[in-house]
Amino acid sequence: MYEELKRRVFNANMLLARSGLVILTWGNVSEADREAGVFAIKPSGVSYDEMKAEDVVIVSLESGERIEGKMNPSSDTKTHLALYRAFPKAGGICHCHSTFATAYAQASHPIPCLGTTHADVFFGEVPVTRALTKEEIDKDYEGETGMVIAEAFAELDPAATPGVLVRQHGPFTWGKNGVEAVEHAQVLEQTAKMAWIQNMLDPDAESFNLDLLHKHYERKHGANATYGQSSHKTR
Amino acid sequence: MYEELKRRVFNANMLLARSGLVILTWGNVSEADREAGVFAIKPSGVSYDEMKAEDVVIVSLESGERIEGKMNPSSDTKTHLALYRAFPKAGGICHCHSTFATAYAQASHPIPCLGTTHADVFFGEVPVTRALTKEEIDKDYEGETGMVIAEAFAELDPAATPGVLVRQHGPFTWGKNGVEAVEHAQVLEQTAKMAWIQNMLDPDAESFNLDLLHKHYERKHGANATYGQSSHKTR
Amino acid sequence: MYEELKRRVFNANMLLARSGLVILTWGNVSEADREAGVFAIKPSGVSYDEMKAEDVVIVSLESGERIEGKMNPSSDTKTHLALYRAFPKAGGICHCHSTFATAYAQASHPIPCLGTTHADVFFGEVPVTRALTKEEIDKDYEGETGMVIAEAFAELDPAATPGVLVRQHGPFTWGKNGVEAVEHAQVLEQTAKMAWIQNMLDPDAESFNLDLLHKHYERKHGANATYGQSSHKTR
Amino acid sequence: MYEELKRRVFNANMLLARSGLVILTWGNVSEADREAGVFAIKPSGVSYDEMKAEDVVIVSLESGERIEGKMNPSSDTKTHLALYRAFPKAGGICHCHSTFATAYAQASHPIPCLGTTHADVFFGEVPVTRALTKEEIDKDYEGETGMVIAEAFAELDPAATPGVLVRQHGPFTWGKNGVEAVEHAQVLEQTAKMAWIQNMLDPDAESFNLDLLHKHYERKHGANATYGQSSHKTR
Repeated sequence: MYEELKRRVFNANMLLARSGLVILTWGNVSEADREAGVFAIKPSGVSYDEMKAEDVVIVSLESGERIEGKMNPSSDTKTHLALYRAFPKAGGICHCHSTFATAYAQASHPIPCLGTTHADVFFGEVPVTRALTKEEIDKDYEGETGMVIAEAFAELDPAATPGVLVRQHGPFTWGKNGVEAVEHAQVLEQTAKMAWIQNMLDPDAESFNLDLLHKHYERKHGANATYGQSSHKTR
Repeated sequence: MYEELKRRVFNANMLLARSGLVILTWGNVSEADREAGVFAIKPSGVSYDEMKAEDVVIVSLESGERIEGKMNPSSDTKTHLALYRAFPKAGGICHCHSTFATAYAQASHPIPCLGTTHADVFFGEVPVTRALTKEEIDKDYEGETGMVIAEAFAELDPAATPGVLVRQHGPFTWGKNGVEAVEHAQVLEQTAKMAWIQNMLDPDAESFNLDLLHKHYERKHGANATYGQSSHKTR
Repeated sequence: MYEELKRRVFNANMLLARSGLVILTWGNVSEADREAGVFAIKPSGVSYDEMKAEDVVIVSLESGERIEGKMNPSSDTKTHLALYRAFPKAGGICHCHSTFATAYAQASHPIPCLGTTHADVFFGEVPVTRALTKEEIDKDYEGETGMVIAEAFAELDPAATPGVLVRQHGPFTWGKNGVEAVEHAQVLEQTAKMAWIQNMLDPDAESFNLDLLHKHYERKHGANATYGQSSHKTR
Repeated sequence: MYEELKRRVFNANMLLARSGLVILTWGNVSEADREAGVFAIKPSGVSYDEMKAEDVVIVSLESGERIEGKMNPSSDTKTHLALYRAFPKAGGICHCHSTFATAYAQASHPIPCLGTTHADVFFGEVPVTRALTKEEIDKDYEGETGMVIAEAFAELDPAATPGVLVRQHGPFTWGKNGVEAVEHAQVLEQTAKMAWIQNMLDPDAESFNLDLLHKHYERKHGANATYGQSSHKTR
């Protein structure tokens, strides 16, 4: 069972490995099958060179229990679970420790929206979660990490801001499936790098034009999107 | 028809993909056939891995309409069109979001000419366009982007400065054909990176020697060029 | 004799070469066989392209003498020897000149623990050795380098902090075997890079949460570790 | 004639291309055959992908004239010639525009010796040439570039400092042959990068220990060198 879902999650994890965002085993991707009530996730601590599609672990969205697979799921599984519950439209989730996004997370600085590259995917700044309390860390660290992410989106649309920085830890991103979650991790890293370079060059540069923010975000998203091949309009 | 032009534009886009200047689908290259009154451009949102030469779209230089190809042309097509009209000697155009050039664009800082590496290709600083008005963004965003680039060159020779930074967006470069436009994008990124590193090291370093600027630019361009194999002089 | 040990050390050196942490011949990895009373180490100045497993040199842990192999062992052999003697649980040692870790070493700055990426492997900051005296440099430079590393760990557990910066020189890391020593060098370089980027962004960011430090270190180490596949608990 | 020399220079140029120090055609390597009174050098403006060993050009050390080959030699040929004349022990020369070394050259800052990585190859700081006068630029730019390099070494041993930064231009390095000249370019770039990172981290770090400078330089050079396999001492 779940052969196709396992294969998809395997491929998304391999895309992450090829993307240059991870060294060693520092990342994991999952994808949900909402109808089947499950998600599939990378096994814990297995190197990308050795992982096989059959090693991918199937977890219940309802109980959080492993329901197929012999290996332990990623140590971040409870965070993925909490996010699938909090964000009903998320179809895939990616976690990694990419260099610049992680440096911003370590500094507890949101990634500001400074140009069209960022605005094409993230509608405004990428937020940082609040610090976990000692009680939260001790009780259910990975689950509570998911809860503070959800808390950070109390007044944000997770579809318009498909990523977050977990304070002093690193980025989580999501999308319609595992591959898009990885692509959003690539965008987040690249925009964090550009923001950092710009900040070194001129920390007082003028703020980003809100009209451009709207224009770029709307070129790629929503009813009037004109980017790509799926639009019915010819341009 | 246009098989050869499509193949050339396909190859130039592949060169851009291999150059390390783009992730995902963040770039596009076009090339004009002035005699035929058309230019060819990358289809919108198609990954470099999947694009085929036959997917390249042919657009009329006169009407701006697609005249061959089934796919939607790049979302930046109207910018390319405006540039071909404004710069009659441009034979190819490249747009990308390369890291350092984009950071300078985001900061609205021109790329200063600080050394011979820059002077070999760009005769002086690479300018930044003015901000678009809300009306320009709303009415014809991509076309107006081309117009503000042309405006920035009112008193500059686009052959001597074959590139520009679009404010809060990213670089456009051009050349005698698509491949040279991509090479100029590579030079722009590399000189932006060197300028940034130098600026961090010493923002008050002496300004670039104008005699060296002339010497280097003229070694590679114009009637007395001595660089390469096309010169009739033996050196 | 020692064919298996030589092959293991050869593979660990090749992993180092592929990791991007070294150019030219700027690195060496060794691994000990404590029962046999020896360690195996890269030959001196041999390029990774040309090195063969049979070129690996076997050195006595007791006498420090070469006991098998025709080539000269790494010029850093006496440092490795001193570390195997000082740290009885170290099974492999790696030395390289990776960019960011070396820059911190040159500046004589420890690498601060600023996030979970660091805490997963290093329990707190990575220290810098004291300066060698002229007498130590003149008498037995490589051996004394090992001694000042040991001195820096007088009150630190080398298993919880599996690496060090040798002042004005570069990093040494260790692990249960040669491959793990190389992996720790990769982590050290990556965390040095993140720390540097964060320091440029905001040198006054809040200090790292000690509860997170404990949580992350303990997720991967010790009796209650939950990371990876070796734990008997299902999670 | 000169087949072997051409092949050696071809290979050294290919090593430079693979080293990551150049984009496009931004580099050239030459090697001298002192007995034959010639040196061989890369043709001008030819891409590394297309260059063949037979394209390498042979130039007389005495007259500076091309004596074999159909192509124009590198536009920097007169600089190479001047250096072979000024530095009788140089057997190979490399010029490139590697990122960090060029940024230091553009800023007219010497590369300081801050650690053992630098000291292993360069005995102290790498100097910057003085500015060329307008007369020198107009009269014989490439030849005069070689002359100001020689002038910078009036009181320095070019064997102990096998490289220089040409002011507002970029690095030249040399060695016993073309391959070693390229390796010295790799070391120069890497030490420039480390120096820059350190400078950003702490511009006031303590200066490099002179005893370490002597120790490291002498481990690899001179009568008592102990590094590598050519020493007759077993260690």
